[in-house]
Amino acid sequence: MTFFPTAGAFLSSLSALPQPDEAARSAAVARQGQLTKPPGSLGRLEEIAVFMAGWQGHERPRLDRGRVVIFAGNHGIVDRCVSAFPASVTAQMVDNFEHGGAAINALSNAAGLDLKIVALDLDHPTADFTQAPAMSSDECLAAINAGAAAIEAPLDLVVLGEMGIGNSTTAAALCVASFGGSARDWVGPGTGVDDEGIARKIATVDAGVALHGEALTTPFETLRRLGGRELAAIAGAVVAARLAGVPVMLDGFICCAAIAPVAAAHPDILAHCLAGHVSAEPGHRRLLDRLPLDPLLSLGMRLGEGSGAAVATLLVRAALAAHDEMATFAEAGVSVA
Amino acid sequence: MTFFPTAGAFLSSLSALPQPDEAARSAAVARQGQLTKPPGSLGRLEEIAVFMAGWQGHERPRLDRGRVVIFAGNHGIVDRCVSAFPASVTAQMVDNFEHGGAAINALSNAAGLDLKIVALDLDHPTADFTQAPAMSSDECLAAINAGAAAIEAPLDLVVLGEMGIGNSTTAAALCVASFGGSARDWVGPGTGVDDEGIARKIATVDAGVALHGEALTTPFETLRRLGGRELAAIAGAVVAARLAGVPVMLDGFICCAAIAPVAAAHPDILAHCLAGHVSAEPGHRRLLDRLPLDPLLSLGMRLGEGSGAAVATLLVRAALAAHDEMATFAEAGVSVA
Repeated sequence: MTFFPTAGAFLSSLSALPQPDEAARSAAVARQGQLTKPPGSLGRLEEIAVFMAGWQGHERPRLDRGRVVIFAGNHGIVDRCVSAFPASVTAQMVDNFEHGGAAINALSNAAGLDLKIVALDLDHPTADFTQAPAMSSDECLAAINAGAAAIEAPLDLVVLGEMGIGNSTTAAALCVASFGGSARDWVGPGTGVDDEGIARKIATVDAGVALHGEALTTPFETLRRLGGRELAAIAGAVVAARLAGVPVMLDGFICCAAIAPVAAAHPDILAHCLAGHVSAEPGHRRLLDRLPLDPLLSLGMRLGEGSGAAVATLLVRAALAAHDEMATFAEAGVSVA
Repeated sequence: MTFFPTAGAFLSSLSALPQPDEAARSAAVARQGQLTKPPGSLGRLEEIAVFMAGWQGHERPRLDRGRVVIFAGNHGIVDRCVSAFPASVTAQMVDNFEHGGAAINALSNAAGLDLKIVALDLDHPTADFTQAPAMSSDECLAAINAGAAAIEAPLDLVVLGEMGIGNSTTAAALCVASFGGSARDWVGPGTGVDDEGIARKIATVDAGVALHGEALTTPFETLRRLGGRELAAIAGAVVAARLAGVPVMLDGFICCAAIAPVAAAHPDILAHCLAGHVSAEPGHRRLLDRLPLDPLLSLGMRLGEGSGAAVATLLVRAALAAHDEMATFAEAGVSVA
């Protein structure tokens, strides 16, 4: 399926984004006010229930059809020693996902979510963005469409994650391009590089932004020149989910950075998104503040592969269970304050 | 069952608290280091798995037999208009728990936990602690033993909660007695009183502490004079769980305040406890800092009845699933950094 036939079609979709169903939202708000608890006392669980009601268009939203999608890609910049792991680990971890041995397998099971793995041309890394655009226009559009294709309605919620050795450097480059600041503001240890590794990451981001800065005229160009296939795919998935009315749970720094170029130009793109957690990667808090999104969890996680977002989905389950199953004051015969 | 035959037996148990199984803890730490992820990248999920391993005495801990216990009690101080709800709501909510209509019913179901309700002499509120001790020694000891009796091994985890109109004022009094500060430091809106209600709560706490201050010589005396039946029961449950090696998930301000008198004198009592969340009640953050406990969730919840702790139990499930189900680097053929 080619969801976006051209880069222009992708960009123009951002100017006509569908909005939540206000009648369903209002009905959910009214229901929350009648349940046997002081108003607002379930805090963000109430907000989640109302959010889901709006996007699903039902007073009592469901999470029967939840899916985690992990996009994987490889990056030319790994030759610059920006990761603690070799590039071959991307494909090894995809095998691990497919054989059920990774954290996301266990966490998807625990959260009652299906898991879909989309490996994007792992044998052909993107170009080193300090030397050339990471992708051609066709390559970037194909990656965006691969992301969109993973959103097959009907889904009640989609959880997005990524795997790609080197991609915390790519993510930092997207953040500089989207929200400014210096490379040092957005680079962190990722999966665990030392101070010299961080210095190499900063130099790589600086070189990429210096080379492409003038050409970063649209979100598509930013994703194409400084991004990676798995990041472009996440951007495509977020936009396609919005067009289909499917709420999205975002994961950590890299996942959020993937949508940053779009969000910087069209902040409303995040209206159907929840931030599952704030990770231990220092740039993530900064990025969440800029988007802005308020993360559901803060557990010091920094694994990627959708892991924090999958855990956060458990809170959605709790929120919907309370919203759906609780008695009203009238039903229970409890005195109202 | 009379777990603690005398107040002295309760207090002396606090001087010989069992410790976690270090061999099981070490085995769990070693396993975490071999799983297919960068070391430490699951953050607090790794810590939870190791914590559970130590208290259960198994490298791979389980959560097959988890139970929420809610203790309910009534308070003489409600005549001082310290709550937005009438005292009759305590019994109405117990009925609601028993008929399955409360938040904790939905949240226990969502978390796969059994739910046990222990209503403590609701027709006989404690005495108004501004006039007399809240309980006689026999009443307080009976409440502590009712808490202990709710911990029937084998349990993999126990989640503690409370229901008692007026008990956020009782909890504030226990906090002043345990950790000092003024009533204003520990009093908050509870289920939703206005500024005048807060002023009445502060005056009530001040009067209680002034009356009993000199007599608060042991944790038992503090619980007896300023506490309530459901709070003494929680203290008894926490201590009995420790003696049985059962890890505990604590809930919000009131639940944590119940163990504050014991923890102020014997800080190690909390070694087998997790703090499920930090609630919206301002005193809860202050109390967690003093105990000290680092809450797993911060969702603006302020309902009590074990609700935040039950939601946090979902994180324990996620932690144990990852710990148990993930492949090691060797099993998955993934390159180690």
